[in-house]
Amino acid sequence: MLKTSLLYILLTLTLAFPSFGQKAPIVLVDQGSFAVGGKVITAPGTFDPIAHGAFNPGNQSSAGQTLHGDHAYVFYQVPKNSKKLPLIFWHGYGQFSKTWETTPDGREGFQNIFLRKKYPDYLLDQPRRGRAGRSTVAGNISAAPDDQLWFGIFRLGVGTAFYPGVQFDKSPETLDQFLRQITPDTGPIDFNANTAAVTALFDRIGNGILVTHSHSGGQGWLTALKTDHIKGIVSYEPGSNFVFPEGSVPEPIPYVGGVLKAVGVPMDKFKKLTQIPIVIYYGDYIPAEPVENPAQEQWRAALQMAKRWTKTVNENGGDVTLVHLPEIGIEGNTHFPFSDLNNIQIAELMAEWLRQKGLDK
Amino acid sequence: MLKTSLLYILLTLTLAFPSFGQKAPIVLVDQGSFAVGGKVITAPGTFDPIAHGAFNPGNQSSAGQTLHGDHAYVFYQVPKNSKKLPLIFWHGYGQFSKTWETTPDGREGFQNIFLRKKYPDYLLDQPRRGRAGRSTVAGNISAAPDDQLWFGIFRLGVGTAFYPGVQFDKSPETLDQFLRQITPDTGPIDFNANTAAVTALFDRIGNGILVTHSHSGGQGWLTALKTDHIKGIVSYEPGSNFVFPEGSVPEPIPYVGGVLKAVGVPMDKFKKLTQIPIVIYYGDYIPAEPVENPAQEQWRAALQMAKRWTKTVNENGGDVTLVHLPEIGIEGNTHFPFSDLNNIQIAELMAEWLRQKGLDK
Repeated sequence: MLKTSLLYILLTLTLAFPSFGQKAPIVLVDQGSFAVGGKVITAPGTFDPIAHGAFNPGNQSSAGQTLHGDHAYVFYQVPKNSKKLPLIFWHGYGQFSKTWETTPDGREGFQNIFLRKKYPDYLLDQPRRGRAGRSTVAGNISAAPDDQLWFGIFRLGVGTAFYPGVQFDKSPETLDQFLRQITPDTGPIDFNANTAAVTALFDRIGNGILVTHSHSGGQGWLTALKTDHIKGIVSYEPGSNFVFPEGSVPEPIPYVGGVLKAVGVPMDKFKKLTQIPIVIYYGDYIPAEPVENPAQEQWRAALQMAKRWTKTVNENGGDVTLVHLPEIGIEGNTHFPFSDLNNIQIAELMAEWLRQKGLDK
Repeated sequence: MLKTSLLYILLTLTLAFPSFGQKAPIVLVDQGSFAVGGKVITAPGTFDPIAHGAFNPGNQSSAGQTLHGDHAYVFYQVPKNSKKLPLIFWHGYGQFSKTWETTPDGREGFQNIFLRKKYPDYLLDQPRRGRAGRSTVAGNISAAPDDQLWFGIFRLGVGTAFYPGVQFDKSPETLDQFLRQITPDTGPIDFNANTAAVTALFDRIGNGILVTHSHSGGQGWLTALKTDHIKGIVSYEPGSNFVFPEGSVPEPIPYVGGVLKAVGVPMDKFKKLTQIPIVIYYGDYIPAEPVENPAQEQWRAALQMAKRWTKTVNENGGDVTLVHLPEIGIEGNTHFPFSDLNNIQIAELMAEWLRQKGLDK
């Protein structure tokens, strides 16, 4: 009985604190959170706190009231003896800051890994997502099941079958955690609102390194056009909105399930992307030639566009490194390399690139 | 010019890291996050990854797909040499974990304050809120302005005028941050889903102390009926759903703007609330007699009900302490005492209560 209780306690501790006691402590000189950017809207009229000050859901007068929305939210941590440039982590589509936290199988994510490497970090939720839920535009949230769509697009496998050799723990608990990382938009996605809020973040904190994933990849390029504070970009699997000089915008790339278009901006704006070091990583299961599976096709188009983009930026004096992980012998990565089973190796690659570019001082 | 730049840098650092360098480091042996509880729903049919595997917003087939939703999300931190019982912090209506983080005026909130006191902490977002956004039921999100409604209900003041002596920094930046802490529900509020998810959290982490605020006050009593792992409750300004024994449920309390009803449960269930120490705190600007302002009236009713509840639980052998802060000489507190200007004093009160009840080992 005592033995069983002890076993139960140990099991509970292991589940609750997966890395408890196995690693050195993380020493923080500061941590905190704030909202940044955003708008204020005001309804016409005058607010009467006596007539309309009761909580009356569904039947509330807005007259004369304001709404503060469309901000981003960040949680930041500063380790002791930290490096100068913080990492600003931006999630992808349908995701929030959880992307960078504990992995679905309970190991440390990039949040802890890079704190241990002495980088201050900012984990942001873009406007109308997660902890930045207050939107100035109304929204509808569907509860239509779509887990298997994302299982495919996030390249865990096809249907419900994992890819052979995938760097993802196949226990049901891990998939359960992974699927619960999905969170809806609380209003329409608005690139202007998002890039404005992230620009406001850099205005507030100063210089830093932007780390993007998927849908924030393209938004990251657009944000870099707006601020001088982004000193480098690490982009995991950017999916769309590659920015080219007007006149050099490539033809759209058709694929099974859609068409990937590029974005044109004036050359003087584009030039900003040539002035900072950029690295892009793509994982495995991205075919070189067209296939029938649209969830893979989307990434075939993205990788193809990323190659063209890399060439264009570098031809204009830029410093973009494109790493297709299987080509350097790292196989089995999903659309989330930073939380895959080999995420320590993926983090080391990023850390080494930061060192090479002098961004690790 | 150099002077101006240095000043700017100092100002930026001060804004970005309000407490940077002023306090001892926080040493963590672990931190991480996970989803807990929740449901899985499945749409009828069969998922065809080739026919329906393309991202096609607004026109997606759900056939055969699942959705994982209605979980809670927690971010936990464990300080070095920590106490045994963690604090589990549960936000109120329209709020999320931010409630316990950096205060609107940029000082440390209960998250950091109690880490420094060596309590492990879990900051939770209830199902369909913040980082636990995925809901199994569809929802509509309004963007109708209502900031001034909350300014009133959260007892900062009336209309746009602050109460005299309020423990809230009156700079526009602080109010801006405060109002951006509001975040919508991504699906209908469901007490069963919420209490089930928080019960699942306690099942996973074991014994702990629940700290509730406002709307989670009543949900906290309901959760305590479901689990033996809650070893104490600290409740800031519980607003509704006070649980009484069937047959002893008091009459509803009418107030300007509504009626506050109590909840009845069988005596054997109710008894659970008599077996753990509980402390309840209310702030200032709560009138003893009816007034015309509904935003104050709601709290007059809540405090009156809390007094009846305290009496009933204690008459049945319980250990509830009700503290109306102005009565012990602490004045000016809003509905958010833990982030008000005097939150260190408020934290000390709580810490002392935990010590008295032996919950600080």
